[in-house]
Amino acid sequence: MTKIEAIAVGNELLSGDLADAHVQRFGAFLRERGLGLSRSQTVPDDLDAIGDAISQAARRADVVLVTGGLGSTSDDLTVDAVVALLGVERVEDGPSVEHIRRRSTALSRTPTAAQLEQAWIPSGSEALFNRAGSAPGIQLTYHEATVFLFPGVPVELEALMADHLAPWVDQALPIRPLQSAVFKTFGDTESGIATRLEGVDWEAAHVAYRATFPEVHITLYVQDGNPDEAKERLDRLSTRVRERLAGVLFGEGAAASFPAAIGGACAASGLTLAVAESCTGGLLAQSLTAVSGASAWFLEGVVTYSDEAKTSLLDVPAELIRSHGAVSEAVACAMANAIRARSGADIGVGITGIAGPTGGTPDKPVGTVHVAVAGENGVTHRRLQLPFDRLRNRHASAWKALQMIGRMCAVTNT
Amino acid sequence: MTKIEAIAVGNELLSGDLADAHVQRFGAFLRERGLGLSRSQTVPDDLDAIGDAISQAARRADVVLVTGGLGSTSDDLTVDAVVALLGVERVEDGPSVEHIRRRSTALSRTPTAAQLEQAWIPSGSEALFNRAGSAPGIQLTYHEATVFLFPGVPVELEALMADHLAPWVDQALPIRPLQSAVFKTFGDTESGIATRLEGVDWEAAHVAYRATFPEVHITLYVQDGNPDEAKERLDRLSTRVRERLAGVLFGEGAAASFPAAIGGACAASGLTLAVAESCTGGLLAQSLTAVSGASAWFLEGVVTYSDEAKTSLLDVPAELIRSHGAVSEAVACAMANAIRARSGADIGVGITGIAGPTGGTPDKPVGTVHVAVAGENGVTHRRLQLPFDRLRNRHASAWKALQMIGRMCAVTNT
Repeated sequence: MTKIEAIAVGNELLSGDLADAHVQRFGAFLRERGLGLSRSQTVPDDLDAIGDAISQAARRADVVLVTGGLGSTSDDLTVDAVVALLGVERVEDGPSVEHIRRRSTALSRTPTAAQLEQAWIPSGSEALFNRAGSAPGIQLTYHEATVFLFPGVPVELEALMADHLAPWVDQALPIRPLQSAVFKTFGDTESGIATRLEGVDWEAAHVAYRATFPEVHITLYVQDGNPDEAKERLDRLSTRVRERLAGVLFGEGAAASFPAAIGGACAASGLTLAVAESCTGGLLAQSLTAVSGASAWFLEGVVTYSDEAKTSLLDVPAELIRSHGAVSEAVACAMANAIRARSGADIGVGITGIAGPTGGTPDKPVGTVHVAVAGENGVTHRRLQLPFDRLRNRHASAWKALQMIGRMCAVTNT
Repeated sequence: MTKIEAIAVGNELLSGDLADAHVQRFGAFLRERGLGLSRSQTVPDDLDAIGDAISQAARRADVVLVTGGLGSTSDDLTVDAVVALLGVERVEDGPSVEHIRRRSTALSRTPTAAQLEQAWIPSGSEALFNRAGSAPGIQLTYHEATVFLFPGVPVELEALMADHLAPWVDQALPIRPLQSAVFKTFGDTESGIATRLEGVDWEAAHVAYRATFPEVHITLYVQDGNPDEAKERLDRLSTRVRERLAGVLFGEGAAASFPAAIGGACAASGLTLAVAESCTGGLLAQSLTAVSGASAWFLEGVVTYSDEAKTSLLDVPAELIRSHGAVSEAVACAMANAIRARSGADIGVGITGIAGPTGGTPDKPVGTVHVAVAGENGVTHRRLQLPFDRLRNRHASAWKALQMIGRMCAVTNT
């Protein structure tokens, strides 16, 4: 069994400032390949501690994955620690210098001396091109272990793992592919999902739950010497999961997103969308337009935060707002109908509510939200009473609207 | 300086199932007392690995904090690892047996043999009463280090830290409260900020940088036996940092947020805001309205994703869009002027651009964004050429707009 260790470098990981997420990222990456971490260490931005940790790990393990300390500030010491450990010099890597210069030029800047220093790597090591940042990753051998140095910035780490670590692992290590399937749900709690799945025969698969507010994700892992048998088993289990999760399952696969799924449903039905938001303040529009290609089905949005905006942008009668209150079924439905009419979209959405922490009343406490979705066959409305904080109340409200849009697409489609 | 190390035990921490939160919990607990973790290790549920990690840590550190592996299932091996390391027996702790029996009785159950085994602690060690669970914490001495064994269940760990670790640390260790100050910036890279701060006399303070796209945060830590002296030093250093970071510093303190700072600037100047977004798709509106109390200064937003919406919601002439293109200075300025006029807000913002990954042309490549801010004295415009992916291009564009709004508030204010 290949032994793999991780090392995370950074004072902020030991000071209480930040929880480490890299070890989990490495663990998930390796598990997909039937591999795992045998140990991990977290060390401060300190030359001796970094060197000592790498030295120990390299003596125990076949592969050492290090993150952090590759930046351009004085507390980035990983490369210095490695050259001290190896007893080599730092040498300039031409392509890395070019890359740093190009990135700076794109921002109309001149690279600083500190930025350019990131291109100086330990002699005898290999620079790994970083498409998401300026510091290259570095690959080297120490004590027969293959050591990777990666930046700690998550987006850069992910890019380097995809571009360099994945191909290397797949080629160099005896991986026993673990097959996995991810199911993403919205509309039930983690224990509600567990109840829905009670009694399923998992055939020795590993089942992992993850709550990612306001969604719950389930991953099945199947490992088998025979990949075809593993695939068949995973397919059987997936069918069972889909049956049990009908109504809350919105997508499969790690890349699935609820807004993208709803956008896809609109596109498949040939329907266009426009949204009018009050308490969610643009969150629904921004989530939908974050989907690449949204312009094919998203027409427009309005954020009518003030009562005046509801009247002037949407022609919601001031009298209606006075008699029912801005947070009411009547106003939510009027917003949905109005944005649909003014945009010419097939589906119009209206959201109005009290996200908190202030603004609640005995009648309409914080967390009261009205969501309305208007289509050619009329308006669907839901009143929510959410128990979360401001940001999560907004998030849950926008996701509820997505769910209602999806259902309207499904109805229109059949 | 007291050296303190942490060890987290559990397969689930290495498999990608769970991110470790204990190290951060210990770090925050210690920082309040002017102490810190010098290192941390994560090991699987394996006798040798647990024993090896404790042995190493106890040789390096004065205090070792271990979590996990104290439960009643077969993969809970921490106590077994410790008795093997110490070469002692496990002995029954009377009060712990009583506690386990009482908890079971309260649930109308009889304790299982495995549960009762939790009361068997290493000979010569001390059981720490656990009010939140059945497994006692354990305190012992190994290699002159004080070693604490805690359960991994967060609520039990927290109870034991409060009831036993806190009083012990406060009494046994020379705590020196640490004072810190956080500075948050937008508008320069991490290395640009480092360049701005070059040559500052830090008077032995520790300076930590953190890039939180698209922001860069800096934290100063000052420690001194005399708290008044520490505060004075921190004030002196803070003044120097403020001078160097003028123009990019938007807030101080862990809770500061750029949208909240800009909202505060609007409120302080008595100015109201309305925004018209194309490529950012509601991100600017949602970021501003995420601020509690935004209704005092945020009036409305429109997401004019389609050209038709720009014309119908904002009266941007179709002819202007045809001649200049939707992504142009002319259209951004027209959007800013139009949303200002139609909402009656003091400041109007227009953003139009190509977030990517598709939609670029040789003339206007992906990342081309025009931001315009209209006020009573006219319109300010910036053309950006951003090198990031879709989501980060959107984020950076919205943050650039916040910066321009802030500058207009400052001008209006003076």
